[in-house]
Amino acid sequence: MKQLEKLIKRIIYRVNINLREHGSFDVEPYLREIVPIKKLVKFYAFYGITSHHPLYFHFSNSNLAGSYFLGKCTVDNSVLYKSDIRGDELKTKGDVFHFQGADIALDHDEKISISDSFLIKTLVHNYSHDPENLEEFIIKNTASTPYANIHGAPVEGCFLGPFSTVDLTTMNDCVIGRFAYVQVGEIIHQRVEPGSILIRKAEAFDFSYRFPESILNRYIRFKPEKGLSGIFMDFVESRKQDFQEIFNVVLLKSPMPIPFGASISRYSVWKGKTRVSKNVLVAQRAYLENALLGKGSNAQENCYIINSKLEGFNITAHGAKIINANLGEKTFVGFNSFLHGTPECMLNIGKESIIMPHTIIDLKEPVNIPSGHIVWGYITNQADLAQHSLPLDKLAVIDGEIKIGVMRFQGSGAVFVKEFKDRIEHILEANGAFFDGTKCKGHAQKGQNIAYNIIQPYPMGSQKGLYPTIDIRL
Amino acid sequence: MKQLEKLIKRIIYRVNINLREHGSFDVEPYLREIVPIKKLVKFYAFYGITSHHPLYFHFSNSNLAGSYFLGKCTVDNSVLYKSDIRGDELKTKGDVFHFQGADIALDHDEKISISDSFLIKTLVHNYSHDPENLEEFIIKNTASTPYANIHGAPVEGCFLGPFSTVDLTTMNDCVIGRFAYVQVGEIIHQRVEPGSILIRKAEAFDFSYRFPESILNRYIRFKPEKGLSGIFMDFVESRKQDFQEIFNVVLLKSPMPIPFGASISRYSVWKGKTRVSKNVLVAQRAYLENALLGKGSNAQENCYIINSKLEGFNITAHGAKIINANLGEKTFVGFNSFLHGTPECMLNIGKESIIMPHTIIDLKEPVNIPSGHIVWGYITNQADLAQHSLPLDKLAVIDGEIKIGVMRFQGSGAVFVKEFKDRIEHILEANGAFFDGTKCKGHAQKGQNIAYNIIQPYPMGSQKGLYPTIDIRL
Repeated sequence: MKQLEKLIKRIIYRVNINLREHGSFDVEPYLREIVPIKKLVKFYAFYGITSHHPLYFHFSNSNLAGSYFLGKCTVDNSVLYKSDIRGDELKTKGDVFHFQGADIALDHDEKISISDSFLIKTLVHNYSHDPENLEEFIIKNTASTPYANIHGAPVEGCFLGPFSTVDLTTMNDCVIGRFAYVQVGEIIHQRVEPGSILIRKAEAFDFSYRFPESILNRYIRFKPEKGLSGIFMDFVESRKQDFQEIFNVVLLKSPMPIPFGASISRYSVWKGKTRVSKNVLVAQRAYLENALLGKGSNAQENCYIINSKLEGFNITAHGAKIINANLGEKTFVGFNSFLHGTPECMLNIGKESIIMPHTIIDLKEPVNIPSGHIVWGYITNQADLAQHSLPLDKLAVIDGEIKIGVMRFQGSGAVFVKEFKDRIEHILEANGAFFDGTKCKGHAQKGQNIAYNIIQPYPMGSQKGLYPTIDIRL
Repeated sequence: MKQLEKLIKRIIYRVNINLREHGSFDVEPYLREIVPIKKLVKFYAFYGITSHHPLYFHFSNSNLAGSYFLGKCTVDNSVLYKSDIRGDELKTKGDVFHFQGADIALDHDEKISISDSFLIKTLVHNYSHDPENLEEFIIKNTASTPYANIHGAPVEGCFLGPFSTVDLTTMNDCVIGRFAYVQVGEIIHQRVEPGSILIRKAEAFDFSYRFPESILNRYIRFKPEKGLSGIFMDFVESRKQDFQEIFNVVLLKSPMPIPFGASISRYSVWKGKTRVSKNVLVAQRAYLENALLGKGSNAQENCYIINSKLEGFNITAHGAKIINANLGEKTFVGFNSFLHGTPECMLNIGKESIIMPHTIIDLKEPVNIPSGHIVWGYITNQADLAQHSLPLDKLAVIDGEIKIGVMRFQGSGAVFVKEFKDRIEHILEANGAFFDGTKCKGHAQKGQNIAYNIIQPYPMGSQKGLYPTIDIRL
């Protein structure tokens, strides 16, 4: 265990040095509480072998307990606890990257490169959107905490709070508060307050919202030396047990005949009367209970869909939770959103509506969201919608500033709506929603044939908890 | 699958070229029958991570379905199907090898190096006894078939029949018949007939026995294009199912509290009223059913102990089967022996008796083997013992030639008995039978804390069935 303890200390020092200008911010009392060292020896890590992605893994001087790897990744001097490192959308050699009129061809395949970092129950996905660093998706000197989401976002010297998301944004020496969402292209030496939603594109638009502290505290609290608490944690902790059996079995039979073009990860939970249609993707660590997923829908990592019906082409993004809801076609539920109806207070969402990332809908009465709306913030009843939603076509004609409640939008609504819709199309396409048997293959089809290899650390001695050095290539 | 099929063809060509002088011996019709290609994609391989042995694995352009690796091994251009490659007794850097008065210090750690070979349900264990090649235990251009046993024996260009053993012998361009046992130091360009037992040490002794063809055929037949059949195959095939559940679970609880100094592989089968005492080693793929193992006993790979009681310090070597028997202290049951009593016809073996490797005792009446005897050949009743056993102290005074039935011994009985007894002591010691809490640690104690990592091949595409290139080191 000695080497592992040394490693953890070393990572903490490095992160703290990067964050030294933020007062004397110390990540240690946060981290110590949420990962008892003993557990790092307990869970196995695993990586996917598939013919659909370039394959390269390199692990050294690290603990990878419970983590999953796909694509090309290197991990050095890091602790990755129950994290998902999904490199299935990395750029490949010869790809052309477009940036401000320039076309840059990639020299070699991109890889995710994680070093000197502590990622806890963190999702890393997609490819680096840093135009300065095309072939390497870097995560360095960084500590991230449960259910943080590093999405196409290279980060160096940062601390990510629980349930926070950094999306398509290069980030350096920042502290991101719990449940904050940041999609701003680039962010340096800043502290993002808890519950802030920031979506910004230079010379195009600027969307911001912030959850009231008192509401946020009910859902997620994070205190040094006390760890995590609140409704979000209670929700995931109470369902943790269901995953254990799944992880203890090497080969698991599919819970239903796999429909054409669909894939159901054998590392997903499947309970009650759950059914999926063709071209559906159910990712690892997705949780389905009495869930009906119409064709072309995807249920991404760490999402929960319970007692709900989704018509088709629905996106349930990483970490989103949908309970007691009916969703029309092509609704989008963003990262870490919490949509919580009850059998008496159902949530109905009309087709093509967009639930922004990090939205909380926690019902005291039934709520109907009409189709074609964009929704954000905190909603408990029908009346709340007035201050937390807009028809998309109304947003699309805004050019200038608008304030609704604490939400502020500035810039071109048309560009904002177009980019959001384009991204939804891209997500559906990438996940294989439009597969016709030959064309438009996506993750759903590529995930059908995947082998999972299991790695574990030294079980005792001074190397206890550290994985051997491993190199894997085609 | 294309690449895998190419690989298999290539191995077959290479083995056949090595064996070209043995008539036009073609290994292909033997191999094709016993491993349906489809199964090569089905089973995972696994390797052990422990702090007790140097760790180095390298796999390339190979299929490893169902195989297990420990210690330092490289595998290139090979198919290893359900084989155990156990490098836990390899020589290490600095070790001194004694040979004919010379002391040679090892330059670096020894590794098992397997290339261009097809090993099927084969056990590779121990270290190379080739004095010409100290740091590398080579298996090359070789095909071996189910339950063959390559024990401290580097082999090149050979074909090993089912249930055959090559023990402490360097072998080149040989064909070893089914159920033959060869321990002769070095053997080149020879064909060893099925059922031959050959133990020879230059200028010391020469033991030989051969099973009558008609008896051998009842236990194991092997025909090109027809595969394997006989009592041995029926026996193992009927118990195959019990292993499947074990291999499908990642973490398996110990079937009983582990006694002091003992280890029970989580890849062993454990049924009925089975109990083990302290310092007992139960290896992977051992099968215990209503078995009582007294202290310091070991149950090695592929052994079966059923409805039997072993008093203590008993060795049940790789592939040995003991059914309905009572064994006194320190009995030795050699490789692939088949000791088959029934509830009505129990087999009793007195203490310190030696059942030679590849002995068949298949009872029609109860049989008592007195203590201190050495036993070989084929026994079905008490009367058979007369022609198939000797008191060890009688054998120890022989100097010259003796023939008993078809057994012929020539040379120094004293040296033969001493070497056998020394080896038994070594095996007990290496397996940890004498562990006292601090000194005499062996496999039983070192096997207590071991992590198993799982590897699988590409599940589809042209690489289907081939494992990625993998390098693992400290």
